[in-house]
Amino acid sequence: MDSTQLRTLLDEVRQGVTDVDAALNRMRHMPFEDLGFAKVDHHRALRHGMAEVVFGQGKTPEQIEAIAARLVERTRNVLVTRVSEEAARRVVALSPQAEHFPLSRVVRIWRDRELKGRGKIAVVCAGTSDIPVAEEAAVTAETMGNEVESIHDVGVAGIHRLMENTSRLQRAKVVVVCAGMEGALPSVVGGLVTAPVIAVPTSIGYGASFHGLAALLGMLNSCSSNVTVVNIDNGFGAGYVASLMNRP
Amino acid sequence: MDSTQLRTLLDEVRQGVTDVDAALNRMRHMPFEDLGFAKVDHHRALRHGMAEVVFGQGKTPEQIEAIAARLVERTRNVLVTRVSEEAARRVVALSPQAEHFPLSRVVRIWRDRELKGRGKIAVVCAGTSDIPVAEEAAVTAETMGNEVESIHDVGVAGIHRLMENTSRLQRAKVVVVCAGMEGALPSVVGGLVTAPVIAVPTSIGYGASFHGLAALLGMLNSCSSNVTVVNIDNGFGAGYVASLMNRP
Amino acid sequence: MDSTQLRTLLDEVRQGVTDVDAALNRMRHMPFEDLGFAKVDHHRALRHGMAEVVFGQGKTPEQIEAIAARLVERTRNVLVTRVSEEAARRVVALSPQAEHFPLSRVVRIWRDRELKGRGKIAVVCAGTSDIPVAEEAAVTAETMGNEVESIHDVGVAGIHRLMENTSRLQRAKVVVVCAGMEGALPSVVGGLVTAPVIAVPTSIGYGASFHGLAALLGMLNSCSSNVTVVNIDNGFGAGYVASLMNRP
Amino acid sequence: MDSTQLRTLLDEVRQGVTDVDAALNRMRHMPFEDLGFAKVDHHRALRHGMAEVVFGQGKTPEQIEAIAARLVERTRNVLVTRVSEEAARRVVALSPQAEHFPLSRVVRIWRDRELKGRGKIAVVCAGTSDIPVAEEAAVTAETMGNEVESIHDVGVAGIHRLMENTSRLQRAKVVVVCAGMEGALPSVVGGLVTAPVIAVPTSIGYGASFHGLAALLGMLNSCSSNVTVVNIDNGFGAGYVASLMNRP
Amino acid sequence: MDSTQLRTLLDEVRQGVTDVDAALNRMRHMPFEDLGFAKVDHHRALRHGMAEVVFGQGKTPEQIEAIAARLVERTRNVLVTRVSEEAARRVVALSPQAEHFPLSRVVRIWRDRELKGRGKIAVVCAGTSDIPVAEEAAVTAETMGNEVESIHDVGVAGIHRLMENTSRLQRAKVVVVCAGMEGALPSVVGGLVTAPVIAVPTSIGYGASFHGLAALLGMLNSCSSNVTVVNIDNGFGAGYVASLMNRP
Amino acid sequence: MDSTQLRTLLDEVRQGVTDVDAALNRMRHMPFEDLGFAKVDHHRALRHGMAEVVFGQGKTPEQIEAIAARLVERTRNVLVTRVSEEAARRVVALSPQAEHFPLSRVVRIWRDRELKGRGKIAVVCAGTSDIPVAEEAAVTAETMGNEVESIHDVGVAGIHRLMENTSRLQRAKVVVVCAGMEGALPSVVGGLVTAPVIAVPTSIGYGASFHGLAALLGMLNSCSSNVTVVNIDNGFGAGYVASLMNRP
Amino acid sequence: MDSTQLRTLLDEVRQGVTDVDAALNRMRHMPFEDLGFAKVDHHRALRHGMAEVVFGQGKTPEQIEAIAARLVERTRNVLVTRVSEEAARRVVALSPQAEHFPLSRVVRIWRDRELKGRGKIAVVCAGTSDIPVAEEAAVTAETMGNEVESIHDVGVAGIHRLMENTSRLQRAKVVVVCAGMEGALPSVVGGLVTAPVIAVPTSIGYGASFHGLAALLGMLNSCSSNVTVVNIDNGFGAGYVASLMNRP
Amino acid sequence: MDSTQLRTLLDEVRQGVTDVDAALNRMRHMPFEDLGFAKVDHHRALRHGMAEVVFGQGKTPEQIEAIAARLVERTRNVLVTRVSEEAARRVVALSPQAEHFPLSRVVRIWRDRELKGRGKIAVVCAGTSDIPVAEEAAVTAETMGNEVESIHDVGVAGIHRLMENTSRLQRAKVVVVCAGMEGALPSVVGGLVTAPVIAVPTSIGYGASFHGLAALLGMLNSCSSNVTVVNIDNGFGAGYVASLMNRP
Repeated sequence: MDSTQLRTLLDEVRQGVTDVDAALNRMRHMPFEDLGFAKVDHHRALRHGMAEVVFGQGKTPEQIEAIAARLVERTRNVLVTRVSEEAARRVVALSPQAEHFPLSRVVRIWRDRELKGRGKIAVVCAGTSDIPVAEEAAVTAETMGNEVESIHDVGVAGIHRLMENTSRLQRAKVVVVCAGMEGALPSVVGGLVTAPVIAVPTSIGYGASFHGLAALLGMLNSCSSNVTVVNIDNGFGAGYVASLMNRP
Repeated sequence: MDSTQLRTLLDEVRQGVTDVDAALNRMRHMPFEDLGFAKVDHHRALRHGMAEVVFGQGKTPEQIEAIAARLVERTRNVLVTRVSEEAARRVVALSPQAEHFPLSRVVRIWRDRELKGRGKIAVVCAGTSDIPVAEEAAVTAETMGNEVESIHDVGVAGIHRLMENTSRLQRAKVVVVCAGMEGALPSVVGGLVTAPVIAVPTSIGYGASFHGLAALLGMLNSCSSNVTVVNIDNGFGAGYVASLMNRP
Repeated sequence: MDSTQLRTLLDEVRQGVTDVDAALNRMRHMPFEDLGFAKVDHHRALRHGMAEVVFGQGKTPEQIEAIAARLVERTRNVLVTRVSEEAARRVVALSPQAEHFPLSRVVRIWRDRELKGRGKIAVVCAGTSDIPVAEEAAVTAETMGNEVESIHDVGVAGIHRLMENTSRLQRAKVVVVCAGMEGALPSVVGGLVTAPVIAVPTSIGYGASFHGLAALLGMLNSCSSNVTVVNIDNGFGAGYVASLMNRP
Repeated sequence: MDSTQLRTLLDEVRQGVTDVDAALNRMRHMPFEDLGFAKVDHHRALRHGMAEVVFGQGKTPEQIEAIAARLVERTRNVLVTRVSEEAARRVVALSPQAEHFPLSRVVRIWRDRELKGRGKIAVVCAGTSDIPVAEEAAVTAETMGNEVESIHDVGVAGIHRLMENTSRLQRAKVVVVCAGMEGALPSVVGGLVTAPVIAVPTSIGYGASFHGLAALLGMLNSCSSNVTVVNIDNGFGAGYVASLMNRP
Repeated sequence: MDSTQLRTLLDEVRQGVTDVDAALNRMRHMPFEDLGFAKVDHHRALRHGMAEVVFGQGKTPEQIEAIAARLVERTRNVLVTRVSEEAARRVVALSPQAEHFPLSRVVRIWRDRELKGRGKIAVVCAGTSDIPVAEEAAVTAETMGNEVESIHDVGVAGIHRLMENTSRLQRAKVVVVCAGMEGALPSVVGGLVTAPVIAVPTSIGYGASFHGLAALLGMLNSCSSNVTVVNIDNGFGAGYVASLMNRP
Repeated sequence: MDSTQLRTLLDEVRQGVTDVDAALNRMRHMPFEDLGFAKVDHHRALRHGMAEVVFGQGKTPEQIEAIAARLVERTRNVLVTRVSEEAARRVVALSPQAEHFPLSRVVRIWRDRELKGRGKIAVVCAGTSDIPVAEEAAVTAETMGNEVESIHDVGVAGIHRLMENTSRLQRAKVVVVCAGMEGALPSVVGGLVTAPVIAVPTSIGYGASFHGLAALLGMLNSCSSNVTVVNIDNGFGAGYVASLMNRP
Repeated sequence: MDSTQLRTLLDEVRQGVTDVDAALNRMRHMPFEDLGFAKVDHHRALRHGMAEVVFGQGKTPEQIEAIAARLVERTRNVLVTRVSEEAARRVVALSPQAEHFPLSRVVRIWRDRELKGRGKIAVVCAGTSDIPVAEEAAVTAETMGNEVESIHDVGVAGIHRLMENTSRLQRAKVVVVCAGMEGALPSVVGGLVTAPVIAVPTSIGYGASFHGLAALLGMLNSCSSNVTVVNIDNGFGAGYVASLMNRP
Repeated sequence: MDSTQLRTLLDEVRQGVTDVDAALNRMRHMPFEDLGFAKVDHHRALRHGMAEVVFGQGKTPEQIEAIAARLVERTRNVLVTRVSEEAARRVVALSPQAEHFPLSRVVRIWRDRELKGRGKIAVVCAGTSDIPVAEEAAVTAETMGNEVESIHDVGVAGIHRLMENTSRLQRAKVVVVCAGMEGALPSVVGGLVTAPVIAVPTSIGYGASFHGLAALLGMLNSCSSNVTVVNIDNGFGAGYVASLMNRP
């Protein structure tokens, strides 16, 4: 059921072809079928018009497989994040188009590859260890219909490497910046570009990084006003909201 | 010096009319003059192409007045945030166009009122006490060239009031949501709209709200993937980045 | 020894049939026998008039088995929470009526199935991953003599799913709401019902959820005044106190 | 507009006397009138069937007075909490029945004094300094139609004083326990009674009490399973939810 | 080298039999020999006049064995705490008098069993799960020359069990109280006795216990003025300082 | 009513001169009279056999005066801590023997000056700013019947000043050590003496001292095993428990 | 008493002109005289060979004046930090050479102005609001005998302003960097220079800056390995240790 | 490419032998080659003139090997920190000069052994368990061209052991102090020496040490002004910055 179908249904109601109760009933029961343990919400795909996403953490491989199987039937693009090896294997078996990204623990089925964005999304990371989070953001944004440019390992301690990428950064419509430790990179990038910057603190670090808290607080206190922040290690969220910002 | 001037200068360089050193010198010395205590950065206006902003907190009324006076000469729109009564009086005296918003402690000089956004920005707040932060966001976005729609007092404990505003929310290109206490409103709004939601935790609350920490953590953990977060009480930041997202 | 026995004993004292020292001695020694490592407190069953509960965490399978064995002899309903697989096996072996709930890690022996409550208890959870905690609450409340209605996967990001259940929620005498991440669900449910809402933060989430702290703080700061809070992942406590609230 | 009116309106809709748009319009505009800065929500009174409450903190005396004035016209019982001296004076001037409780900073207008509860509510506090919070709870519960019994200064360091009150505690249908510092009192009371215990941490203490955090954490970790917790210093919330629990 | 030897040496210096440099040299090199990785400090035994203690955590079994071997040669009583199974095996092999306490992970060699205290030390714990910490305290105090009385499983939720032990508690010269979760027991015990109470928070609990932080804060804020606190799970420290308090 | 009176009363009960109810009634009503806002607990003086103490914080001058007036009639030594100037004036007016210590904000009435301890109590502080807390400890210990030796300004950064006082420290039966900032002094003192050390973190410091948290954590983690800790700035508690430790 | 005097005294001891006790006595009593409330430690000046410093916070103006008066007599350079207006007035009155820096709340008496360092010390700050802390560092370093170069308002959001100062930064022997909010500046500076960088987090910021905690954590997690950190707002400490690093 | 090469290149540019673009191109591409996952930054070696360092944590053995292989070809001294056993094996296989330090998990290739410092660096640790961190600091400083003196197990609870080492400490140009638990050692050492002290909190401890937080806060609040702090367990950083301080 896509938004066209919904519009059709509502028109039928207006025209008296379908009465309100029947319409309500169809709308209510059709889009999210009850799998027993989780209500797969096709409404969300309908509302956001993109891929369907399964957040794999805290779900068993069996649950993930069952949810993904339903989605594969109904949606063109499916993204499964935070999968274990076992869950990845099961989802990959569901479709010949499935790709597994072991570093970022993502599986995607990417059948509708039409570009939908207004421009490029740049995904930047500070250090080698931040790449998994950056990859999750990049794969998400790409699957949502965006051209993505990845720029890795440009941490602030070697500011020249970052400066060299200034023009690439300035060409992006949205910039996602992933950094752990002190989390300073989004502030510097934010000063170089006029696009919105989505900062992703990563849990990379040790000691007083407190599993990403230091980076998170740093980003929330950024002196660059074009920076907003998502949860620690939330590459998916950053890629997702970057896609929304990039839509026409 | 606006971006046209900069382009002219660079063309002169390319054409050999100005040599590189002279150009560098002009670029370096012209845009941020040294006031002794602060370098007013016209580069930022140049880069972001909007209003100039003075963050009033931690500056004396004299400092604020001096910085604002420089900006008023060079920039069409000036925003001064977190002003004391005294500082507000001084800035208001600088220009007949100055307006003072005592609730949100903002003074603005709004001379270029051309709309620059792609659509409306909705600014939503959960309770009466959150209005100052919401107003800071709304005034900022408006001054940056956006049409703003404010929706107040639609907290989650009375979900029907929020639901009634669903279509207004769904028409916005960007939604700013300000909430204190448990900070749940951005998650609910995020589920109702497909636009990006900028969540602003406010310090409203008491006890275990820990001056906005509860709301901040709630928003960072939002189960709605279209939510990003700014610092506690950072209405300005939310209005600013919403403006960037709304630009063509 | 139930409350009738206690009353009989006290009457004997009043009538001089038993002297005070003897009575004190019987009362003191009979109800909680010393197992060496733990005093099984039959007084509590006597005081609260329900099932006896063994909190399994931090106890060895042997200790759990020994305590449960004593309780099975004296009490009709026994609940063992937070059991390992090994402890579950041992307790299940104690009684043919024993049931094991692996998801919520509960074993119960439910021999007195009489309904004792004034109405239904609704147990609601936000996401699939919160089900184990919700199940612990539901099994507890059921074993304590209540009719329980479970409503799963109605998180605030898809507010329509929750709204659809409004009338079911409004029919309950007490509502238990389990949610991780931002923990916003109790506030919304609290606004929909007039019954008391017991909020259970779960440790579901990552990054800035800090193992349930974000949800906990959110619930403590709920703008719905009918919400009280128990410890993170404390499904048992929520089911228990809901039972007390539901008693005539 | 009370629930009878609402039902009448809906029946008119069903019978075709009123069309849907008109009905929606009346429902939408009548119950919560827009005062500009706050939507007074008569729906809540309608839903919870008790007094209307104004949370005074973060509102100006003028705002409080305006909201209270509206409520006084429509609702029999009005409670205004966390009022300044100035706001109290203004609200007291609104009605000859208004009473001001300076210790707990509450003003109430108590016109419907019918008892609505199933039994008594006991409000207990640990020390003299906790009395303001306990009073807020007691006044709230009383105004909501309950008989309240207050037991002050029975902290755990002098356990005999508490034990002496055991039978009074055991006669209550609900017990509210307010304590600062280590917050141990709810656990001990919880072991003495079978009724639900609502624990209110207070900010009384110094040093490592961290403004009530120590008491809050203590109460959340109570080994008495009949304890639930509200926010630090939230006497109102405790009295309110105790009233709900005490309703038939 | 015991304090008699030290006194003899110093007298020799005073009498000119030994010159200062030689004396200094002997004092410096004799009491703590360098094992390469740790200076075994016989000075401490000399200063505190009791057993020697090896804190096993963070040391390899080989290191523990080597340090213990040295101590066994020179000191009558040796206590090794926080040992792994492997380290315990090695230390037990050093002496036929060695005893292993697997619950509290202590090994001791207890050759001087003379009672040195002024009275009894009571070691109390709230729940079964706190026994390992209580046992560490009890074994320590016993090895340091004290008569120890252990009272287990007398948590505050069943206050009568504790009250029954009042006179045993009141006979002790020092009381050690171990409790996890809300950590309320020391406050109640502190109100029942006039002896000093050493409170040991344990890491028993879950969720908002934050690995013993809740109990620690509760104990630091005790309203009983005779309570002092040691680190979380520091049974050894409590037993040690209780021994010092009990000395004539 | 002192312990002799209590024993007399109980003997009367045993001999049948007084019946149990009458005895209970006298015991219950006599020792802690109800002042309306606080139950003055003479039981505690009776139990601990020392001075009566009023904790002034959070009480109005009127409340403090009323409580102190009662105590002055019945107890020889009265200590009022954390008094405002106004409360101090009122208490001083109650008795010609009253002394006011403005630095530590203590008033005492010290009529029974008999020494009751086994030895001296040393009260040590790290810096000039810690003196108020140290004075509270010293005045408390002195009023409780102890000889007190104060050693000020011997912080660890000038270790020689501390070392010079080694023998004075080693002569004390109990040592109280007050320190803010890093709170390292108790560890060093603990290594120099064999007596128990009561560590008092003070709120002296700034920035990452977090109002005494740094000192508190430091002291809880002391590598000297003879150290126990009380709450931040709790000079009274340290002096009080030191007195208990020093009793025969 | 300077180190020459000390050496002379020790030589006298070696030559038998002064006996050990007399020497010890002179050394012990001369350098830190007891003012009653604080031991002025001339040893420290002696050890560190620079100015004497009085930390004014937590001391009364009278105490500060008394300590400063002693130091002025004995030491050439005196620095008094964190002074109130009143204390500043008193210290300025002590010497015609006294200078008051109201922004950084420092008074200094600077009589020995000889340069003692190996090179320049650069003191950098991120924003206008950080200047007070930077000034405290600069004044300290200058008074300790160093040439100081101050570079203000070069925060990371305008990276070009910082880059322009690269060569000035690279010429310094030590760099002090003061920054609040996200505290990112030390990392970037650390990447530009090879000298040691002393990072000073400031309490500038709001909301999730938590009074400098965000900046502090950021700096501790710096990815530039040449960064060390001092306490929040500790400009003095940074200037002091920078002086030590700059000594030959 | 070393700094001589860079200078040559720039001279060529000045002389017109190389044009700017070509020069830029060579500079940009030569020094940090792209390995796909990490940009090995030879610029840093060039800037800091010492060894190249690979931070092993969060990198796979394969990544570490690849980066190290590149460095071994170009740099004389290579340090790989936080290596797993597997990664250590691979790096050791790269060069016959490679040494593995299993305790501190460091591998180094140390071919340029010329001393470059002005004096000795002392590396001090409080307890046996702190040795791994101290060793990381010592190996780092040594590889950077410094003479290092290690002093182990001189914690503050046995202050005499530390005092004995006073003159060794006072001879050092820089002192690194590693301590866990209460982290008091740097303050005491700081008072004994005039050199800069670099404090390294270690994660050694338990309970309220919170994985090194207690030690970290203690060190940040040190009352010794010559102390600066690095991250928890950051032995490498301490050794590195100590080397910079020791350079001529």
